[in-house]
Amino acid sequence: MADKYDVIVLGSGPGGYVAAIRAAQLGLRTAIVEREKLGGICLNWGCIPTKALLRSAEIKHYMDHAKDYGLKVAGAIEADLEAVVKRSRGVADQLNRGVTGLMKKNRIDVHMGEGRLTAPGKLEVKGEKGTQTLEAKHIIVATGARARDLPGHPADGKRIWTYRHAMTPSEMPSRLLVIGSGAIGIEFASFYNDMGADVTVVEMLDRIVPVEDKDISAFLAKSLGKQGIAIRTGAKVEIAHNGAKAVSATITGGDGKAQEAEFSHVIVAIGIVPNLENIGLDKLGIEMTDKSFIRIDDYGRTNVKGVWAIGDCTPGPWLAHKASHEGVTAAEAIAQELGNADVHPHKLDRTAIPGCTYCHPQVASVGLTEAAAKDAGYQVKVGSFPFIGNGKAIALGEAEGIIKTVFDSKTGELLGAHMCGAEVTELIQGYTVGKVLETTEAELMNTIFPHPTLSEMMHESVLSAYGRAIHI
Amino acid sequence: MADKYDVIVLGSGPGGYVAAIRAAQLGLRTAIVEREKLGGICLNWGCIPTKALLRSAEIKHYMDHAKDYGLKVAGAIEADLEAVVKRSRGVADQLNRGVTGLMKKNRIDVHMGEGRLTAPGKLEVKGEKGTQTLEAKHIIVATGARARDLPGHPADGKRIWTYRHAMTPSEMPSRLLVIGSGAIGIEFASFYNDMGADVTVVEMLDRIVPVEDKDISAFLAKSLGKQGIAIRTGAKVEIAHNGAKAVSATITGGDGKAQEAEFSHVIVAIGIVPNLENIGLDKLGIEMTDKSFIRIDDYGRTNVKGVWAIGDCTPGPWLAHKASHEGVTAAEAIAQELGNADVHPHKLDRTAIPGCTYCHPQVASVGLTEAAAKDAGYQVKVGSFPFIGNGKAIALGEAEGIIKTVFDSKTGELLGAHMCGAEVTELIQGYTVGKVLETTEAELMNTIFPHPTLSEMMHESVLSAYGRAIHI
Repeated sequence: MADKYDVIVLGSGPGGYVAAIRAAQLGLRTAIVEREKLGGICLNWGCIPTKALLRSAEIKHYMDHAKDYGLKVAGAIEADLEAVVKRSRGVADQLNRGVTGLMKKNRIDVHMGEGRLTAPGKLEVKGEKGTQTLEAKHIIVATGARARDLPGHPADGKRIWTYRHAMTPSEMPSRLLVIGSGAIGIEFASFYNDMGADVTVVEMLDRIVPVEDKDISAFLAKSLGKQGIAIRTGAKVEIAHNGAKAVSATITGGDGKAQEAEFSHVIVAIGIVPNLENIGLDKLGIEMTDKSFIRIDDYGRTNVKGVWAIGDCTPGPWLAHKASHEGVTAAEAIAQELGNADVHPHKLDRTAIPGCTYCHPQVASVGLTEAAAKDAGYQVKVGSFPFIGNGKAIALGEAEGIIKTVFDSKTGELLGAHMCGAEVTELIQGYTVGKVLETTEAELMNTIFPHPTLSEMMHESVLSAYGRAIHI
Repeated sequence: MADKYDVIVLGSGPGGYVAAIRAAQLGLRTAIVEREKLGGICLNWGCIPTKALLRSAEIKHYMDHAKDYGLKVAGAIEADLEAVVKRSRGVADQLNRGVTGLMKKNRIDVHMGEGRLTAPGKLEVKGEKGTQTLEAKHIIVATGARARDLPGHPADGKRIWTYRHAMTPSEMPSRLLVIGSGAIGIEFASFYNDMGADVTVVEMLDRIVPVEDKDISAFLAKSLGKQGIAIRTGAKVEIAHNGAKAVSATITGGDGKAQEAEFSHVIVAIGIVPNLENIGLDKLGIEMTDKSFIRIDDYGRTNVKGVWAIGDCTPGPWLAHKASHEGVTAAEAIAQELGNADVHPHKLDRTAIPGCTYCHPQVASVGLTEAAAKDAGYQVKVGSFPFIGNGKAIALGEAEGIIKTVFDSKTGELLGAHMCGAEVTELIQGYTVGKVLETTEAELMNTIFPHPTLSEMMHESVLSAYGRAIHI
């Protein structure tokens, strides 16, 4: 006889396992199906291990600049790539064990194997234990996404890498080409540059980190340039030869001139593809968006009753914290459908999803860019503040950065905040809390930000939008 | 003939110079009087240079643990105390020049000298240029405070130090006694411990950082203990002998047993004394509080018309950001009195003033402790979350820490937040923004904190108060 669950979650990335935990908290009988490793990409080959790598690069950067802090090192400082990667894998393993523990603690059944929807409420799982069919009132598809390949040159892990290869390199790249300047591309460019590689970034659009505000793109490009990263925007790249020891690539810049160059390695970071093959969606008639993601309502419902979807296999932004939020929302909406009147699922507010890039200097933002705000018809007031005006930034030796804030000039509503500099990925939550609470400039001006902190610049940027900045 | 101003600010610490800038922004003719260095204690011998010292200690700490991050150092790592202090002085000098520039840019007259109120609206300044009398409609007293001396053993800069000496040490302490475990005491204990000194902290009360929540005190004490700092709480100390090469001190613990020990240096951090001598307050009949600070209303008014006071010479908390806020408020209230109908001075909300201690691990908090909330009659819901449950903390190698949140169980209002761990001094602003906007648990639960960040723990701690934490 088949198992009976209230909810089965297909995929155990942050969206999936959070959905399962929330469902279990609400008393639902819950199972999770995973084909590879609990925690999915984010935890095993994504966010977390990358941050571990970047931490090693950060510490190396400090050590390379030890003298600036009054410290002396008698001998040479060296990054042991194998040890750096081993540490990162250890962190991923620790978190993977953590998720395993959370499943046990929350009494969530874990089924390892390939899952496929055979009918609404029915999921076939092919795993080590053979094939079994699980049954549940509700199934949440949370299969995530993978790196998009370069047409004609699939990543092979030798010369051409995706982020998964870049995270567990068998050797240190000497001349690295990064194709694509979104968060993933820029993070690896930053990491390998700090580790000593000669790095070139190619971006098709006219600026790097193109989802960010233009001023942030410009600031970051300048900063990365100073660190020695070559940046080619408005440029196309073609792989001419993928050889045993090197890749030849032709880069055609904005000016149309073609340039051929050799690289030891190429990281392809040109976007993602949802993992939706062979999971039975077509047979059930699940509706997709124009861009081939699963179409869902504000709570994660697909067009087929009892089938839900969350995270990277649905429309973006493709961010782990967006997926987790959707996981909670979907689990609560399911509990509600199953008769729980006490839950109040919260639909996703797309204007308050922060985004972070962990390069050096970091980038973080929430809400509308200045251009998007204007395109949306707002009259805006814009403020900005440079890190060089902040005492803590100077004391830290991190005086390179900028914070920009965009307000609706009619109502004072905070429309967007954009940051580049030290620790901004930890700072952005303050503006995000403000946006959720529909803050205007007045409350932010009246907030006391502690001294001496980088966060004082969040205050100054707001003041600046109204001609009231103090330290500039 | 005497100069005529709308506002004169006596003292140029953060409260004073911010008040002057805000007054100037509002079109008031403004002057500032300073007897020593523009920027006052905070900028020249307080917050800023200490943070520069602590940054060097932090980098040294990373270097000492380089191996943990996969990095190799061939030789010995050494802190060059002279270079560390020189860097810190350089940072202070840079900011001092910054304030000088801000005064010029805002067309604020700077008068260097000792100021004394001779009548409402009249301030005598004795400086290099001799004695002159300045006149203004309003005078803001912002003379700050200094370290309280140990009775009978004033700090001499040789064996017995205040923070000013501790910031510019002529030699490295070998065995250091820190008397007092507030923010200043604990920061220097942490710094000199990281720099290699053998450190003992003595606190009269039953726990260190006694203004913080009890759980934070306990967590920090354990962490500092593991780092090798000896902590004696509920203890008294008496200096037996202040010699040329050492100080003998008798420490009487909670158990009543006296213990004598020798220290190379003593840092006295037992509180502050307002700088109110010889500035003419008594002659004008300015009212003081029981504890000898200047009594003010919510906008900084003293009982004498035209005389205002802000910052550390008024009732606490004695924090630079509280002083700056008061500076803005007083300047705006003065502008209002002078006929500006467009300004809306914001009175200080004492429940939303964050506090930070920059030891290692850091401490930060805002609002009521659990005990204070209960004392105030609240029924509370309390949540907490440990750093070890956070992926970013593990990736950073900073898995030691805790976040605690206190809510009113009836309304869900966030009453207080208390943190100990990496970067919490930069995180606390998010809860502070929330408190200003009168957040309840619901909005914080619905806020999307970016992944992977330490700030996700702020979310988890809130969830935990309502039995909904995910990663624990």
